[in-house]
Amino acid sequence: MDTNIKCLFNPKSIAVVGASRTPGKIGYEILSNILGYGYGGKVYPVNPNATEILGLRCYPSVSAIKEEVDMVIISVPAKLVPEAIEDAGNAGAKVAVVISSGFKEVGNKDLEDEVVMRARKYGMRILGPNIFGIVYTPTRLNASFGPRNVIPGGIAFITQSGALGIALMGMTIVERIGVSSIISVGNKSDIDDADLLEYLAEDPHTKVILIYLEGVNDGRRFIKVASEVITKKPIVVVKAGRTEVGAKAVASHTGSLAGNVVVYSVAFKQSGILPAHNVEEAFDWSRAFSCLPLPKNQNLVVVTNGGGAGVLITDTLAEYGINLPSPPKSLMDDIRKLVPPFASLANPIDVTGMISNEGYVNALLKTLENPEVGAVLGAYCQTAVTDPTIIAGLLISRIREMGGLNKPLVLAFIGGEETYMAIRRLNDFGIPTYPMPERAAATMAALYNYVKIREGVITRISKLSKKP
Amino acid sequence: MDTNIKCLFNPKSIAVVGASRTPGKIGYEILSNILGYGYGGKVYPVNPNATEILGLRCYPSVSAIKEEVDMVIISVPAKLVPEAIEDAGNAGAKVAVVISSGFKEVGNKDLEDEVVMRARKYGMRILGPNIFGIVYTPTRLNASFGPRNVIPGGIAFITQSGALGIALMGMTIVERIGVSSIISVGNKSDIDDADLLEYLAEDPHTKVILIYLEGVNDGRRFIKVASEVITKKPIVVVKAGRTEVGAKAVASHTGSLAGNVVVYSVAFKQSGILPAHNVEEAFDWSRAFSCLPLPKNQNLVVVTNGGGAGVLITDTLAEYGINLPSPPKSLMDDIRKLVPPFASLANPIDVTGMISNEGYVNALLKTLENPEVGAVLGAYCQTAVTDPTIIAGLLISRIREMGGLNKPLVLAFIGGEETYMAIRRLNDFGIPTYPMPERAAATMAALYNYVKIREGVITRISKLSKKP
Repeated sequence: MDTNIKCLFNPKSIAVVGASRTPGKIGYEILSNILGYGYGGKVYPVNPNATEILGLRCYPSVSAIKEEVDMVIISVPAKLVPEAIEDAGNAGAKVAVVISSGFKEVGNKDLEDEVVMRARKYGMRILGPNIFGIVYTPTRLNASFGPRNVIPGGIAFITQSGALGIALMGMTIVERIGVSSIISVGNKSDIDDADLLEYLAEDPHTKVILIYLEGVNDGRRFIKVASEVITKKPIVVVKAGRTEVGAKAVASHTGSLAGNVVVYSVAFKQSGILPAHNVEEAFDWSRAFSCLPLPKNQNLVVVTNGGGAGVLITDTLAEYGINLPSPPKSLMDDIRKLVPPFASLANPIDVTGMISNEGYVNALLKTLENPEVGAVLGAYCQTAVTDPTIIAGLLISRIREMGGLNKPLVLAFIGGEETYMAIRRLNDFGIPTYPMPERAAATMAALYNYVKIREGVITRISKLSKKP
Repeated sequence: MDTNIKCLFNPKSIAVVGASRTPGKIGYEILSNILGYGYGGKVYPVNPNATEILGLRCYPSVSAIKEEVDMVIISVPAKLVPEAIEDAGNAGAKVAVVISSGFKEVGNKDLEDEVVMRARKYGMRILGPNIFGIVYTPTRLNASFGPRNVIPGGIAFITQSGALGIALMGMTIVERIGVSSIISVGNKSDIDDADLLEYLAEDPHTKVILIYLEGVNDGRRFIKVASEVITKKPIVVVKAGRTEVGAKAVASHTGSLAGNVVVYSVAFKQSGILPAHNVEEAFDWSRAFSCLPLPKNQNLVVVTNGGGAGVLITDTLAEYGINLPSPPKSLMDDIRKLVPPFASLANPIDVTGMISNEGYVNALLKTLENPEVGAVLGAYCQTAVTDPTIIAGLLISRIREMGGLNKPLVLAFIGGEETYMAIRRLNDFGIPTYPMPERAAATMAALYNYVKIREGVITRISKLSKKP
């Protein structure tokens, strides 16, 4: 792995070329985010027409800084980028984050090639061009012109799309989705998904990697790296251009090739990538991977106070390839004492809509504590006899007393305003909770499918390595 | 159609048998909802142990009221229900809404049969038992123990599940989904989906019917009625027990048969029912059907400021059977004047992330106003150069000036907190807006698929009627 890539996440110092004094301008917003989000290293604005920006001394060039500069962020018109790269390379920068657009995506491939060539001369790596920046929450680095107050967490989000990526960055804040990193890769002139996967696989703050992908330059390497990474952590991909017409739309959008639809699908399967059907699902799954342990065994038990929710969950699990086993007998003996006599003691366990707050929480926790159970999916429907605020509070304090979760717990909380507040609270605490039964079920299925896939990949790799 | 069914939606007077003075009790909550939501007819609490409840004179029995009683709501222990039915029938009630549980769902089929038999004697119809009630917003009737402030709108929601149904009732309020009716059908001892479909087909306040369905008693009649109704308005069904294991879960849940999985799927297809993959999708689609006209022609045009969102929309449309045509030339001539030179003038039209608030709104409205365009799907990604509050405001005022929509406009607004507020505002105004591109795309596909299906069904019916 190229050690310069490390400077993308852990730069000791940053120069912002094209820093601006005008709020609203990209060169202002990025500098302001770097300072405002709490980055601890040195920051140098570079702009020949200013002496001070946001209280920092401003330099006419990177070379003029005369201190070590790890990362250079470049936000100047496209035609000035080669010169800025030359300046940064001269000054010994390890990595350049090229925000500027106006390259391959509008047909200027030659200009992009020149930028890469000049960087290579200095051994400097390039992220971009045509990107909104990079965020890495462990070092409080928000070198982007997106929203500032990104929530720290375990998801590394790599996006090939700019506008969509920056919009989803805002979405993660509203939906309380914590990220380790957000990386806008844009035209991928140099640093690509495979480079980032290699780095993120070793990053202790990253539990899962989520990629919005239109196409890759070097498919063979991507697949090779991905299949190694998934032995360590899951990779969830939303593939844009997964239909023939979608692939054409990619071509018309960026000029890049989305590639053969079938080839991608087969390659994903072989490498063990989890293909999400859509963006919502990708973040739903990643949220769970980022904060939960993996299932301990095949005994997935569903606990619900709404029979209908239990049926929809059973259907969805089956559609994602997961069938519910009979619940362990030891568990049924415990549950019987907690529920009305007409409760259904199959799997899903239907504790009925008559159950109280305490009854529901007790049933859920008994299931969680049963040593034969491998994972728990709880579905709660807001009824007249329960209160989602109380249930969320009880759950959180009881799980805190237990010292946290040692097996996955995924929840669906369905209901009105108080339920939505409970969802937010549970997510903040680290129990992935969704407003729809099917979303919780698909997420639990992803956890099980990852375990299955990983075992398959590990077996395949060990067989390959045994070959003479 | 049985005219007594009309009394379920338009009762002139209601007696609440088992009315209670104790908040939290079902017999209190229902009475309180009826009074609090603004029902205009007469209301009679019935309870032999009280003289006044919630300021109303209380009666020992329905017969003791000595005034015409259209609807009787029964919330007493199961074993007392036959007697209550007898009393209501005697008093000339047209329909009994039996809230009480403890019948077929727990194995007491005989008791349920007795209830039905007694009602039949008087020609009285029964909704339930084992339900949470009925809501019909045009008459301000909320005879349920669910949340009170249901939002009036065009969706009739029929639910076979109690706890899930009541929870989703709360969800509609948070998500600003307007309903004409919410009907808990429970055990369907008498009034079933087909009866309700017949009524709702003629109800001018209902634009779309959404059913959460586990199983039907008389499949042949359901399919016959459904295929007639869908020539008038769409029916969206979430089928619980659509997989073999899900069907088994239904059996264990209610004792009712979910039926053969393949048979349902074929029957839905034949009758023109739109099968939603999950609850979220069912409400997404129904929201659009409830407030939009149908597509005018095959020219669906997508306008986006985020190329990635455009690609995901193209993929999703294709997955739902809808391919995007080339955009009309007259439209391209107009759009070219509004967008940066590197904008993509294919379909999706990518106005680029550089576009301003006005630029985006103008492009969207030009598309909407083009006479060759049949429907518009707009995707907006929150960028640093745009403001979702301003865009929503501009859109609403411009569409109001146009006198409303004469073709469908479905939106995806992706972004942070302000975007979520814009989504709420747009939905309140009547433009269905979703936080994810794929959800907007699947919804637009449902509009087109309904048109296609309806034409097919109408053709088939007219062919059948021509047979000698």
